[in-house]
Amino acid sequence: MDNKVMNGLLTPKSVAIIGASATPGKIGHTVVKNLVESNYAGKIYPVNPKSDDILGLKCYHTVSEIPAQVDAAIITVPAKIVLDSIKECGEKGVKGAIIITSGFSEVGEKALEEELVKTAHSYGMRILGPNIVGVLSNSDKFNGSFAPFLPLKGSSSLVSQSGALLIGIDAATYLRGVGFDKLISIGNMSDVDFADTIEWLDMDEKTKCISLYIEGFKQGRKVIEAAQKAKKPIIGLKAGVSAHGAAAAASHTGSLAGASKIYDAAFKQAGIIWANDLNNLFDRTLALSLQPPMKGDNLLVLTNGGGVGVLATDAAEKYGVPLKFAPEDVQAELKKHMPEFGSAKNPVDLTGMAGTEWYSETVKYSIQHPWVDGLVVLYCETAMTNPLEIAQGIQKALQESGIKDKPVTVSYVGGEKSEEAMRWLVENGIPAYGAPDLAVNAIAALREFARNKENNHTEIAETGNFDKKAALAVIEKARQDGRSALTEMEAKQVFEAYQMPVTHSRVAKSEDEAVKLAKEIGYPLVMKIVSPQILHKSDAGGVKVNIKDEAAVRSAYQQILKNAKAYKADADIHGILVQEMAPMGTEVILGSVNDATFGPTVMFGLGGIFVEVLKDVTFRVAPFSKKQALEMMAEIKGAPILRGVRGEQPRDMDALADTICKYAHMVLDLADEISESDANPVLVYEQGKGLKVADARMLLKKK
Amino acid sequence: MDNKVMNGLLTPKSVAIIGASATPGKIGHTVVKNLVESNYAGKIYPVNPKSDDILGLKCYHTVSEIPAQVDAAIITVPAKIVLDSIKECGEKGVKGAIIITSGFSEVGEKALEEELVKTAHSYGMRILGPNIVGVLSNSDKFNGSFAPFLPLKGSSSLVSQSGALLIGIDAATYLRGVGFDKLISIGNMSDVDFADTIEWLDMDEKTKCISLYIEGFKQGRKVIEAAQKAKKPIIGLKAGVSAHGAAAAASHTGSLAGASKIYDAAFKQAGIIWANDLNNLFDRTLALSLQPPMKGDNLLVLTNGGGVGVLATDAAEKYGVPLKFAPEDVQAELKKHMPEFGSAKNPVDLTGMAGTEWYSETVKYSIQHPWVDGLVVLYCETAMTNPLEIAQGIQKALQESGIKDKPVTVSYVGGEKSEEAMRWLVENGIPAYGAPDLAVNAIAALREFARNKENNHTEIAETGNFDKKAALAVIEKARQDGRSALTEMEAKQVFEAYQMPVTHSRVAKSEDEAVKLAKEIGYPLVMKIVSPQILHKSDAGGVKVNIKDEAAVRSAYQQILKNAKAYKADADIHGILVQEMAPMGTEVILGSVNDATFGPTVMFGLGGIFVEVLKDVTFRVAPFSKKQALEMMAEIKGAPILRGVRGEQPRDMDALADTICKYAHMVLDLADEISESDANPVLVYEQGKGLKVADARMLLKKK
Repeated sequence: MDNKVMNGLLTPKSVAIIGASATPGKIGHTVVKNLVESNYAGKIYPVNPKSDDILGLKCYHTVSEIPAQVDAAIITVPAKIVLDSIKECGEKGVKGAIIITSGFSEVGEKALEEELVKTAHSYGMRILGPNIVGVLSNSDKFNGSFAPFLPLKGSSSLVSQSGALLIGIDAATYLRGVGFDKLISIGNMSDVDFADTIEWLDMDEKTKCISLYIEGFKQGRKVIEAAQKAKKPIIGLKAGVSAHGAAAAASHTGSLAGASKIYDAAFKQAGIIWANDLNNLFDRTLALSLQPPMKGDNLLVLTNGGGVGVLATDAAEKYGVPLKFAPEDVQAELKKHMPEFGSAKNPVDLTGMAGTEWYSETVKYSIQHPWVDGLVVLYCETAMTNPLEIAQGIQKALQESGIKDKPVTVSYVGGEKSEEAMRWLVENGIPAYGAPDLAVNAIAALREFARNKENNHTEIAETGNFDKKAALAVIEKARQDGRSALTEMEAKQVFEAYQMPVTHSRVAKSEDEAVKLAKEIGYPLVMKIVSPQILHKSDAGGVKVNIKDEAAVRSAYQQILKNAKAYKADADIHGILVQEMAPMGTEVILGSVNDATFGPTVMFGLGGIFVEVLKDVTFRVAPFSKKQALEMMAEIKGAPILRGVRGEQPRDMDALADTICKYAHMVLDLADEISESDANPVLVYEQGKGLKVADARMLLKKK
Repeated sequence: MDNKVMNGLLTPKSVAIIGASATPGKIGHTVVKNLVESNYAGKIYPVNPKSDDILGLKCYHTVSEIPAQVDAAIITVPAKIVLDSIKECGEKGVKGAIIITSGFSEVGEKALEEELVKTAHSYGMRILGPNIVGVLSNSDKFNGSFAPFLPLKGSSSLVSQSGALLIGIDAATYLRGVGFDKLISIGNMSDVDFADTIEWLDMDEKTKCISLYIEGFKQGRKVIEAAQKAKKPIIGLKAGVSAHGAAAAASHTGSLAGASKIYDAAFKQAGIIWANDLNNLFDRTLALSLQPPMKGDNLLVLTNGGGVGVLATDAAEKYGVPLKFAPEDVQAELKKHMPEFGSAKNPVDLTGMAGTEWYSETVKYSIQHPWVDGLVVLYCETAMTNPLEIAQGIQKALQESGIKDKPVTVSYVGGEKSEEAMRWLVENGIPAYGAPDLAVNAIAALREFARNKENNHTEIAETGNFDKKAALAVIEKARQDGRSALTEMEAKQVFEAYQMPVTHSRVAKSEDEAVKLAKEIGYPLVMKIVSPQILHKSDAGGVKVNIKDEAAVRSAYQQILKNAKAYKADADIHGILVQEMAPMGTEVILGSVNDATFGPTVMFGLGGIFVEVLKDVTFRVAPFSKKQALEMMAEIKGAPILRGVRGEQPRDMDALADTICKYAHMVLDLADEISESDANPVLVYEQGKGLKVADARMLLKKK
């Protein structure tokens, strides 16, 4: 990313409005008016071949006429002449084009959009949009958009894929008291996308938190990488997580909304914090932009009402920061600041008698205590206390404590006075919310942020001694045969090339050869038909198990051939697979898809009812760290099975995590070759005893 | 419930304040002041032996001095003299006492509290509290509390078990624009409880929706019955649903918070709609008090922004009202009111160009169309449209449509103008929310309400030809032996008395008798040790299965005896159970507890990993309808197993539902005898082939 170019695009010192208009109501007029009214300090150059003056500003007939350097061009001319404008800008040396005009890929005009980008890039220029509202920046007093005003000032910046929502949010900032420094409308993302804006905002001094409204990434892997590198908290609201919602998203933007489960995985890997609705995006953004991460799990709740304390406790469990009882010394000290019938356990109930002093004293003591990692302060409005004074008491206590690396959030339940106190708290850097649930949810976001930072998401599991050449040779042979799927034996050869343990097997072309191979491999054995036309081998009577001697090998050989011919007379039979029969183990499944948004992505789950009935599977975008593989194993519902139930030994977690990582490498390494694959079942044995891939399947990409 | 008495308590025409005070700041002063300032039209009689005048009102020295009828007494005197006040009131013929004073069961003074109730009841008087804020009623202009003012007017009434929260909510009504007619503080619920207030509010003309803040019911069964009978929507926020939260709730009120899963069951059976946090209680209350139930599943979403449309679609799936595409004719008509690039599918995207007219036309058409059961209208603030005009357009369209039995909710994303428009909508009977997610959640509550009404929760499954006497005889015998647990054989006899199919079994006292019984029952067989001291029979080597002939019976008999003696030399051995070996079937589990809040409660789940690993179980309070039993079977995660997976036949759902109902009858009928029981496993066969209780266990209540 060229910073100078991106700075020119997003914080320009001079801007040309191409399609500027003297007619009120036209977007080309609104943009000029907005720039003027936002007191933009840079140069404003309206451009329109038919005007000489717009809103008192000299209007140029062409971009080339402008007598000085132009950082950014805001383009509002009709779609069909945007390309000409881009060329003009390119010739002029404009750094970036903010293309408001719609009528490109979102209505199927993909080629035209691509042409814009190609042309811009040939001049070293970047494009934001098309089909956007524009760019708004409080710190630059820059309203380069048709949204009516700059948002309330704040220290987070928002990137939105929906223009209408961006305008709504702009207005809502004042209502909710949650401000932003920049609002960036990203539209069709023909060039500058989420990854670029994340990378740029992470360097932007005025931005402390990056908020995203996402309908669908275009290049998911690029976003993950940008987010992993970012130092600031990133929070994302992903729309289109329901099946019907994804369809709705696709119908209204030019981008493809991937499956929710894969986004879930990508957010985890990228360290992006989830927002689960629009309010939640506002609420969590506020906390993430004002408070430090919560570095440990010990959350303390102070309250003047038992009821809100219980609600906060429920929320703490729900949002992954469950309360524990405070240590004895903390309880003993806190007990001094409440009446006999109060409770110091956690939630700490100061009772309705709590005034400013008790709040101050307990806040100051609590935040300073090493056991406490984060603090939620709750207040229920009472007739006896002054909400604003309490707020001031809380803030003063925090200041006096000298503690700056532990987060605090506050909740007030009350009326106008409480509202005023909450506004005051936010203005003084303390996030405050109208319900205990929200304050806890907000501090949970700060805990998530710290956890994300702890997990080194960028450390990828080490590659083994992989033999890509051997794998490609197997695949090439299948392609030469005109096949789009590998046989089980071939698929296993590919798995073996990536150091995964598979059940040994060889193909016999005759009964005698089968007997010979059986001796080499050793009993008991499984025998299976090998035919590209017979994929469901069991259904065809093409599988025999637990074969224990030569006579059984001969009988199985004949029987399988006979069944296969009966099942499909014209099947091309490569032979009969003679395979080591692996001992019973816990069945797990590995799968891969080549996702349109994220590329090769790995699925993991337990076999049997877990996958078939409960759909208990989890995903990660390849490649990933061993820690992520272990997380996958821990986050499925059936995880206790792997840890050992009913007195069973734990399964070989280490071997399984290694195999998942190797599998991820394989599907990434062979991304150009494999469209889908699975290992099903993989039999996992007791700790130290490894695992075996007992069956494998691989479909090839069309070339 | 005596309505006259309850009316006297909750909407009194005259009220005495016992402990009235002339000293500002004292609760006895605040209450008198609040009554005066709320313009209460009834008679106010301050009572204080030491005062003659309080706030210009004549003060009586005793209740008996008051020269007229007194409906309610608000009691604020210290705890130790409350009983005397109750007696005085009783003598005077006061109908109800609102006891604000604290210091009773919540601090361990249970006996004193019980004495209050006993005394009140002896006079035919009811008690609200003690340990409460009081009662507030807008329609009576009655602020009989120490909360500073009446809430914003509204048509819902709130019953709160937390006083502090009630005061906070009182103030918050103005901030949120969600009003209430009555706020009732219920405190320790020594007498009047949730059930009483539900019953009374269901008759109260001014109340359209009943909202509850619950920490814990005292008599859960009574609440369920009252809620089942109620015609109005009831919404409940249950605090203390987390393990730690329940502990916190218990520490601050006198009531026991039951397990969350049982409350979940009770809410379902009672038809109480869940609120999952405080905001949600406000939001859903607003919809339930303003709009009719949503009678079908077809929800249509109209929007001017694709982004909020997608968010609403996601929310619809999340909250159980998933969107479907609108029928062709609906799409064709709606297409007329939007530009080419809009979408009529559902969500219906009118695009950012949508003004008042398009909104009006599409709202009117949609609400009238028979396919549409409910409507969510979304609006993102734009610079070109006027939020209030759009709101008025929506309201006018709804009025002109003439449709009154379909619900509508609205969401605005925007600033002050949107806020003003939303307030206007609420004042005109249309619930409006600041995010699409909330509007969908609110209409989902109206769908839940309709579903609750459809389900006849009060229709209890018919009782069979049960032999309670036989069951009691078995239990009595065990008690006479000094045992607190039944043997498997005895437990099965009790199950059989309630018409549940059990595997046949008999106890053999000798090897020869075992052989004889084996012939009678038929092979294959299971044999098990029968000893009250050996409950874990398998661990003791006390179980042999798949016994196929006489020799095996003899060998098993000897081996089991030997193992049992080795396991526990002094065990009292009743004999060896010779039991029919039931064919393999799908294993399910039935269990019962005698819950402290709800009484006999039934658990149901699938066996094996479903219960052991996934804790995939569900509860219902006994007794319940067959429909509820079928719901239990459908709501567990493993439900597909019962419906048949991998080409298997469905299980005998009908027989299973019958057995669950019979089991519920048994545990209810024997509530005084059984503390816990289970049937594990119950083997369920294919449709039409029934099931068998293969093992049973029963623990007796201490007497």
